[in-house]
This record gives sequence, C-alpha cells and structure tokens, in this order.
Amino acid sequence: MSPKITTELLKQLRQVMKNPRYVQEPVQAYIVPSGDAHQSEYIAPCDCRRAFISGFDGSAGTAIVTEQHAAMWTDGRYFLQAAHQMDSNWTLMKMGLKDTPTQEDWLVSVLPEGSKVGVDPFIIPADQWKRMSKALRSAGHDLVPVKENLIDTIWTGCPQRPCKPLITLDLSYTGVSWRDKVVALRSKMAERKVMWFVVTALDEVAWLFNLRGSDVEYNPVFFAYAVIGMNTIRLFIDGDRLMDPAVREHLQLDSTLEPEFKIQVMPYGSILSELQAVGAGLSPKEKVWLSDKASYALTEAVPKAYRYLTPYTPICIAKAVKNTAETEGMRRAHIKDAVALCELFNWLEKEVPKGTVTEIVAADKAEEFRSQQKDFVELSFATISSTGPNGAIIHYKPVPETNRTLSVNEIYLLDSGAQYKDGTTDVTRTMHFGTPSAYEKECFTYVLKGHIAVSAAIFPNGTKGHLLDSFARSALWDCGLDYLHGTGHGVGSFLNVHEGPCGISYKTFADEPLEAGMIVSDEPGYYEDGSFGIRIENVVLVIPAETKYNFKNRGSLTFEPLTLVPIQTKMIDVNLLTEKECNWVNEYHQKCREVVGAELERQGRHEALGWLLRETEPLARVQ
Amino acid sequence: MSPKITTELLKQLRQVMKNPRYVQEPVQAYIVPSGDAHQSEYIAPCDCRRAFISGFDGSAGTAIVTEQHAAMWTDGRYFLQAAHQMDSNWTLMKMGLKDTPTQEDWLVSVLPEGSKVGVDPFIIPADQWKRMSKALRSAGHDLVPVKENLIDTIWTGCPQRPCKPLITLDLSYTGVSWRDKVVALRSKMAERKVMWFVVTALDEVAWLFNLRGSDVEYNPVFFAYAVIGMNTIRLFIDGDRLMDPAVREHLQLDSTLEPEFKIQVMPYGSILSELQAVGAGLSPKEKVWLSDKASYALTEAVPKAYRYLTPYTPICIAKAVKNTAETEGMRRAHIKDAVALCELFNWLEKEVPKGTVTEIVAADKAEEFRSQQKDFVELSFATISSTGPNGAIIHYKPVPETNRTLSVNEIYLLDSGAQYKDGTTDVTRTMHFGTPSAYEKECFTYVLKGHIAVSAAIFPNGTKGHLLDSFARSALWDCGLDYLHGTGHGVGSFLNVHEGPCGISYKTFADEPLEAGMIVSDEPGYYEDGSFGIRIENVVLVIPAETKYNFKNRGSLTFEPLTLVPIQTKMIDVNLLTEKECNWVNEYHQKCREVVGAELERQGRHEALGWLLRETEPLARVQ
Repeated sequence: MSPKITTELLKQLRQVMKNPRYVQEPVQAYIVPSGDAHQSEYIAPCDCRRAFISGFDGSAGTAIVTEQHAAMWTDGRYFLQAAHQMDSNWTLMKMGLKDTPTQEDWLVSVLPEGSKVGVDPFIIPADQWKRMSKALRSAGHDLVPVKENLIDTIWTGCPQRPCKPLITLDLSYTGVSWRDKVVALRSKMAERKVMWFVVTALDEVAWLFNLRGSDVEYNPVFFAYAVIGMNTIRLFIDGDRLMDPAVREHLQLDSTLEPEFKIQVMPYGSILSELQAVGAGLSPKEKVWLSDKASYALTEAVPKAYRYLTPYTPICIAKAVKNTAETEGMRRAHIKDAVALCELFNWLEKEVPKGTVTEIVAADKAEEFRSQQKDFVELSFATISSTGPNGAIIHYKPVPETNRTLSVNEIYLLDSGAQYKDGTTDVTRTMHFGTPSAYEKECFTYVLKGHIAVSAAIFPNGTKGHLLDSFARSALWDCGLDYLHGTGHGVGSFLNVHEGPCGISYKTFADEPLEAGMIVSDEPGYYEDGSFGIRIENVVLVIPAETKYNFKNRGSLTFEPLTLVPIQTKMIDVNLLTEKECNWVNEYHQKCREVVGAELERQGRHEALGWLLRETEPLARVQ
Repeated sequence: MSPKITTELLKQLRQVMKNPRYVQEPVQAYIVPSGDAHQSEYIAPCDCRRAFISGFDGSAGTAIVTEQHAAMWTDGRYFLQAAHQMDSNWTLMKMGLKDTPTQEDWLVSVLPEGSKVGVDPFIIPADQWKRMSKALRSAGHDLVPVKENLIDTIWTGCPQRPCKPLITLDLSYTGVSWRDKVVALRSKMAERKVMWFVVTALDEVAWLFNLRGSDVEYNPVFFAYAVIGMNTIRLFIDGDRLMDPAVREHLQLDSTLEPEFKIQVMPYGSILSELQAVGAGLSPKEKVWLSDKASYALTEAVPKAYRYLTPYTPICIAKAVKNTAETEGMRRAHIKDAVALCELFNWLEKEVPKGTVTEIVAADKAEEFRSQQKDFVELSFATISSTGPNGAIIHYKPVPETNRTLSVNEIYLLDSGAQYKDGTTDVTRTMHFGTPSAYEKECFTYVLKGHIAVSAAIFPNGTKGHLLDSFARSALWDCGLDYLHGTGHGVGSFLNVHEGPCGISYKTFADEPLEAGMIVSDEPGYYEDGSFGIRIENVVLVIPAETKYNFKNRGSLTFEPLTLVPIQTKMIDVNLLTEKECNWVNEYHQKCREVVGAELERQGRHEALGWLLRETEPLARVQ
C-alpha cells in the first residue's frame, strides 16, 4: 500500500481557503470530518472527502488542514492503516494516547492570532460545532460555516450522489408497521412536549418507514430526511424511486388516509428551507426535537429557544430494542451465515495448504458462499480477510498491493458479515491451518476468556455496556496484554452493522443502558504489530437471566450468542481455561452442532457438516 | 430515629422566599444544596443548612422547596436514612433509580409558568449553576442568585463559623515544602498560559501551604481561600491564628523573602471583592484558573473571557499522587490503626456475649484505642458502628434512638477511620461474634471475592477507576445481588477521607486515570434491608505491577493494601473461593501477622497479638 501523494491537492485546498468565491473571509484552517450530512459512519463515494484529500480511507478520522500543516485524528483501529495510506504532508494524531492533543488544542497551538477555522455546516454535528467553537473562541479564534464544501470545489470527477431503488419490508420482517411506529414516536413527542421531530440519521429514516435502500455500500439505507409533526409527515427524498408501485402501496401514497398519516414527499435538497419555514412559524412552547448530532446547518435552522436536543432520539432507542419478528429474523440470518462460513472454512482447510488462496480469494469465496443463502442482499461491511502481519491492522481490507497468501504458518483472521432481508451479521474467527505456536495459543486463549467473560456475564437491569468492557480485558491484563478498541457495538436488524445507542466499550459516550432485545457484538482481540492479529466476535442478544436472588426483583440480564460458528479448538490452550469456561465452549459448540448442523443437513451440505462435527468435538480439560 | 418536624420551618422559609427584604423579586422555589462556599463534602455546623431545613443529615443531598412542595435528592447510601429523618412534608427523590426525575425536570414539572428559582451563589458550584440555569431557562424559568442565604435568615441559634488554631506540617510529613508546591503550581499555570489561580477547596488550601486545621469535624482543614499569581500569593483567612509563632515561622511571614513568595494575608470575607479587583485589572490573555466546581459567586467575579475552568485543578491532581514521605506516613498510620482495631475486636469478642456492648459503646471503644496511638488527631469520619438491620443503612451513625446492642446472633459492621499526623485511615470490617448463617456467609464471600478482584486487578497505565468497578460486583451479579454505591474513593494524606480526582465507581465523573502513588478505597458491600449489612474495605495504594508482557512498555498497575486488619475467616465460605482468591486471603493475613504483629509486640499488646494470630490462621480449601 503506497501512500496517496497529496502535495498538489493540499496546495489547491489552501488556495480555495483564501478564495473569496468560496469564503467570505480567508480561513486559516479547514476541517474535513469523516461523515456526511447525516453523520453516517459508512458513506457514499461522493461523501468520501476526507479520504480524497488525505488518502486515508478508514471509517473514522478527521482531517484538519492549515496553511502550514495537515493533521489526521483517528483511533487505535486505524493507526497502522492511516500511517500507510498518508504521505509525509500529514501528521497522524493517535486518539486515545495520553500525549495526543485534541483537535481544539492542536489548532490553538498552531494557528496565528485571530484565525478563522472553516467547516461545512452540513457535515459537522451540532454538538461538535458547539464544543469546537467554544474552545476556539476562548483562544481568540472563530469557527465559521463555509457553505460550499471546499473539498468538492477541488474534487474533479467527484462521483454523483446515489439514488437507488427502495426495498419495502412487510410486517413479517419488521413486526411493527410504519404507521404504528409514527404513532409511538408521536406519543414520545407528546411526553416531552415537542411538536416536531426531525429524522436526520439515514438508518432512522429507513427504520421508521420500514424501507431499505442501497445508496451507501454495505448499509441498506437511502438518502432522505423526514420531519414528523403531530399531524403531518414530510419525507425528503429524491429520484423517481417513489414511482415504484410497491413503494407507493407500502407508504399508502395513493390511498385516502387520515391526514396525520398522509406522507408529503418533498425534494431531498429542500430540507433546510422547509425546516427554516417550520422554525419561523413556531409559537412559544412549540419545540422541535433533533439529535444533538444532527448537522450544525439543520440545528441552526431552528431558532435556539425552540430546539429540543437529545443525544439519542426516540427512534434510535426504539430501533435498538428488537421485537420478536426482528430477533427471529436475526436468528435465521445467523444460521444461514454460519452455513456459509462452515462451507468457507471447510474449503479453506483443503485449499490453503496448496498455497493458492490469497486474502482476496478467501474474502470473495466467503461472499460467494453467503450469496447462496436465501434473502442475501449484500455484505454488511468490507470483509477483513487478513493473514499474518496484516491481521494486526485492525480494520484491514485486502487490496492487490497488500494481498497476502494464506499459509499453514500464519494465523488467519476473518471479520465479515452480510445483510440478509431478515437480519444483519458480523462475525470474526481466527484460524490456524497448520500448527499454532504456544504463544499464539496463549494469546488466543486470553482473548477467548475475555469473549466468554462478556458473553456469560450476568448483570442487573439498567447496566450500561461500558461497565462490562473490562471483563473482556481481565485475562489479557493479567499478562500485560490489551487491545486498543472497544469490545462491542450495537448491530441493526437488516440495517447498519454499527448502530447506537448501546455498546460495550471503555469509552463511555453512546452508551444507553442495556435492555432485553438489544443486540451487540462481543469482540475482544489481541494484535501483535508486524506479526498477527486475533479477534473472536459473536453477535449476541441481550436476554433476561435467571439468578438465585434476582436483584431484589430489579431483574437481570445476560447474553445469548446469535452467531453460531465454531471457535477453532486447535488455537485453545485448554489448561488456561477454567472449568466454567471449558463448559461454555463445549455448550456453545453443542448448540452450533444442533442448530447449524440441522440447516447444513437440510441444505444437503454434507462435507461442510462433516467439518462442523470435527470442529465441535468437546474440549477435555486436564484436571 | 423520629423525623424532624419541619412544617413551621417550611412556612417561614416560604415567607422569606417572598420577602422583598431578602429577594428582589419573589422566588417560587429555593434550592438548598449540601455544600459550603468551598463545595466541601463535610461541612461545619454553621453550613448544615440542608439538615436544618429538612432533618436529613447525610453527607450528600439537595433540598428544593417550592410554594407547594419540598423534595430531597440523595443517593443509594442514604435512601433509608433520609426516609427516617424527614417528615411527611418531604418527598424523597432516589437518585440513580430509573424513574427519579432530575432536579431540573422536577422543577419544570411543578413550577408555574415564568418562575424564579433562587439559590445562594456562594454555595452552588458554577457547573451546576450553568446546567440548572440552562435547563430552567429553556423551560421559561429563571435561576437567580439570592445574596443573603434564606436558611440563615430563619435559623435562630445558627452556630458561629469556626476559627480554630492551625497545625504546621514539616517536610518529614509532606515531602515537599509549600514554596516548592507554589513553584510547581506556577509552572502548571505557565504551561496553560494562565496568570492567576484561585484555590477554593479547603483541602487544596491546606495541602498547598502544608497546614492543617480543625474547623470542620473529621477533616483537618480550615476556612480559607488563596489566590496565587505568578508573582504574588494571597491567603484569605480569619482570626488570630496567624499570630501563632510556629505558623508565622512556617509561612515565613516575618522573613525577608523574594517578593513572589511573600504571603499577603487578607480577611476571609474579602475574597469576592479582591477577586473582582483582580478580574477588573486583567489585560487580554491574562486568564484566571478556577475549578469548574468553584462557587458561582467567585466564578462570576472573573469576567467570562478571562476564565479558565477545569474539572480538576493542578493541586487536586498533584495532591492525589502521594510522594514517598506521604506513602510512608500512610503506611505507619495504617499499622497503628490496625493495632487499635486488633485491640477492639479482641475486646468485642470477649464483651459482646455479655450483652452490654451497644453500637455507641463499640464506636467509643474504637476511638479510645485509636487515641492511644502516636500522632492521633481525631477520627476521619463519624464511625459507622451498626449491627443487624442497622448495617443495611449504608452511612448509618448510631444515635441513642437507634442504638442497638451487639449480640452473638447478628452481623456487626464497623466502618471507621482516623486522622493521624502521618496519614488518614478508613477501614470496614464485618464480623459475627456467634455463628453466621449459610446465607450470611454466602453473601460475605461474594463481597470478599469482589474486594479481592479489585485489589488483585492488574491493568494498564492510564486506566480510569470506573473500568474496575464491575470487577467488584461480578461475583454478586452472578447470583443476582448488587450494592447501590461506588466501590472506592480517593483518600487524602492527613486530609479529607474522600478526595478526588480518582475513584472506583460505576459513575464516570470525577475519574482521572489511576497513577502509581494514588490512594483509593476498595469497599464492595451487600445490604439486605431490615436484616444486615456487609462491607469489606481496605485503603489501597496504586503501585506498578509486574506482568509477563508489560503492555508493550506502556506499563501496568495494581494495588497494595495499606489497611492490614484481618478479614474474619469465620464469615468465609471457603468452597466459594477459587484457589487464587484463597491464596490472596492467606497472603494478606500473613502480612497482617508480620507487620501488625511486630507492632503489637513492640507496644506490648500481647492479648491483641494473640487475637491477631488466631484470626489469621490460613484458610484451607477443600479440593
């Protein structure tokens, strides 16, 4: 992977930063955040502005360009990747390390007195704007909105914003109709005494209307906003996709409806002016509810006195707690996904020793097997297929320049998942196709102990995920090992593979209490730079637990693994497991056998079934 | 314990809330926070305004009185106590429970439109003012400062503000002179480019000048403020206590000094006008550093553009990391404290069966044994001496009305500590002087497992204490048990028994990363309302750990118990312990024997030594 040469681009950007055609006054710094106008994590090619200007295309990162400097903030998952992809014009700011300055502190340290710092007001979330604006102001600088995106002005050949057809989901998938979702939302609005709710996150729009799209790769969403009033529904969406009779029928666009359920369809680009019109027409006490992560531009459209901002929207919270139709769908999707992976691992076991399987070949093969399963739509993220040292690049994606051949001498890490119409999967397995070293097994076993510690944890109702994060690390910590990423993220139901508001991380933001029905990943790891990477990831469902004393009737929770793919026993040093941990592995494998075995049988995949049976032989612990 | 009758007092308060002599405009609600003008947790009698108006005298709580309602917010430690101490005029708001409204939400729900909410601006911290003011404003109300404290206006017989003599501490106790502390502080100020630092917390003033006082019971502090400039030192303090030659010598008040170390002594009450004068004389870029928990009154004295507010002051952080002189002092103090407790428990073992020992007698006896130790100053908090159901009142203090007799049929919980000139102690032991039930032993053993899990935890440098909190709960959680308080707090060195900025709690505020030299408590518990309370508390020192792989040279930390008092083995169900936990107990007891045994021997306390030896017999685990 050779870095992108950015000297010329940075020169052009620095020119437009002073060009009165684009900026009222010259800006001494320009911030290029990761997201799009919906603060999406995964973005369409036309929104990959930070990758365009810097070369670094990981999923998280913020670039800041000043007249003299160019700096990139990213987190531990991407330290290696960013260092590889960026040229020497860029300084890498490793977030989470003690000596790394915040963006604000860094700006204050490098800017000349009384500087202006520009940013696209549609891209920066309101809460970030507020924090940064305040810090800059207190140091004598100004954060200013630059209406025209400056990257777009220098981006020749910038791709078009996608506008793909929509998929409608019926009750058997969603469990609740969009009308009932609107009713529930309005009741939350009434509780908080707000009159309007602005839906800005793409997955929230998709969830609310029981629609899916494919405007953003891996995420079944479509570019749209919605504004829900107590008596009106406005959907801001472009293209002729609402001409599709199935969509019109689904949204009842041509039916005679009670006015409060009649959807007014408006152009995507008219959201700002419509919201300004709503804002201008408000009477006292008519509040507008927005996420505090909505863009600065939309937030500013509502006069300050009328804004009601919360970190999590009622849709975000409702969406996270899956209903029975959704959990049943997720179960089905995970069984199909396990079938595909049993096929893949069986195939790899035969093919790897021949020396012809590269990371890309393996990733493609995984997609091929998945695509054979019913209701498969697409992958849920770029497959991380990594062997040997590539495994230590936490969010690695194989490309021809880095593509390595799998061998019997190296650890192979596969982190992959798919979108099925009934659910979203995300699973990581770490395998060795030869004989792992004692050290590799030791590290793998600590990671497994951490995985089990979270998966088998019992905790009282109302516990936040961050309180479980250390359980995943304890065995590693005892030996002086750790990993620089959180332990788990929320997972959508045929929606984004990363979703809020819950998760399991040492970071305490984005962390609403866990509730039965929420779905998160459990994915501790260990990474040895230049050598190997280990991660064991299941998607798990929060379920009620049974305990001896039941927390004085407060109730308790635990996790049920939805992912049912064998964990390679060859990599386990059984002597490092407690009896309880050993039993957990055996019971888990027994369930894989029963549930996935039956499906392999049903699909007539006998060779993969043979592999599953071999891989799920019970562990025997030496007493 | 019968509740305080507050009907008449509330009537008087509601009258002054409308009396133009005290308020510019009538206030529809009046907030009575817990603290004093220094945001102290423990306060002098003259500052116990919330206890005066409500009857509830726990260490944490906020009262709000409106024309119709009176409500009290407090946390899990005090639910039972507050319910007992308050009459039916009051509504108890149980903080931390899901359905309890915040103070702001509650005010908004009960206040008539356009209300004014009053508060003493010297008592409310600036950060709380800001949050509350914003929430009220967005609902159409106003938070207003009421200069005269309204409780004081109705408090006939309000005690005088104390003004007791000072104690000077030399280098053998503090390790660093006050001059060197000022030098270090100024270097932190220079780093942040601030010209002034305002010391508002009482323990920070005491620590900075290596002085102690006794204005507040249990906390060796004195009423004072300080304002440190780059070239000036102003100490705001009342009384003739600076006439003491030892204090004058210590502060070098009569010496010819470089001007930047010359202390200007000013009246305590002049802080506001002096700070306003400093504020008025600032030139651009001359910032004033204050804690964001400093009072609203002092914060407002500095024009907004010149304020530099941080959650933790450099003194708070420096004070938390103990130097060698301080840790050695803490070790000595804990050995003396253990001697006193061995004497006490030996005495209790003999006396309790006679049926003559009440909770108060036991607490007094503990104080008597402690006071026999060298450099004993006073207790470090009100002794929690509680038997049977009283043990479930987490911060119980025995009073004649509740005083219960210890017996061989009930669990006895003693949470106590002392101030010695060389250190502060805080230890909880839970004992049974007869035969504990299987259930009592089971609960005790889970608490012990939690205590050990924290005490023996190994974690990387830079870890925040909240990430260790769940380790203390895991064994309890597995059986559906929990406790409604944090696991640990910072402990001062001959200073406040509770201090920031570190701790171990599921709450994530006040939580700077743990560093070697910090001292915290480790005190999980379990409480069965109406039946018993269990808590096992040691004070522990953060020390470097040795691990196999040392976190890629990031370094690792663990804890060393400073408290060396036997943990009653009779209460342990050995079969519930792992081998590692069993070894921890045995090694801990071996250390108690060696270290405390030697001191008991030296002091000729042979009977107590015999008790120590009996109580520290190794546990034998059935395999």
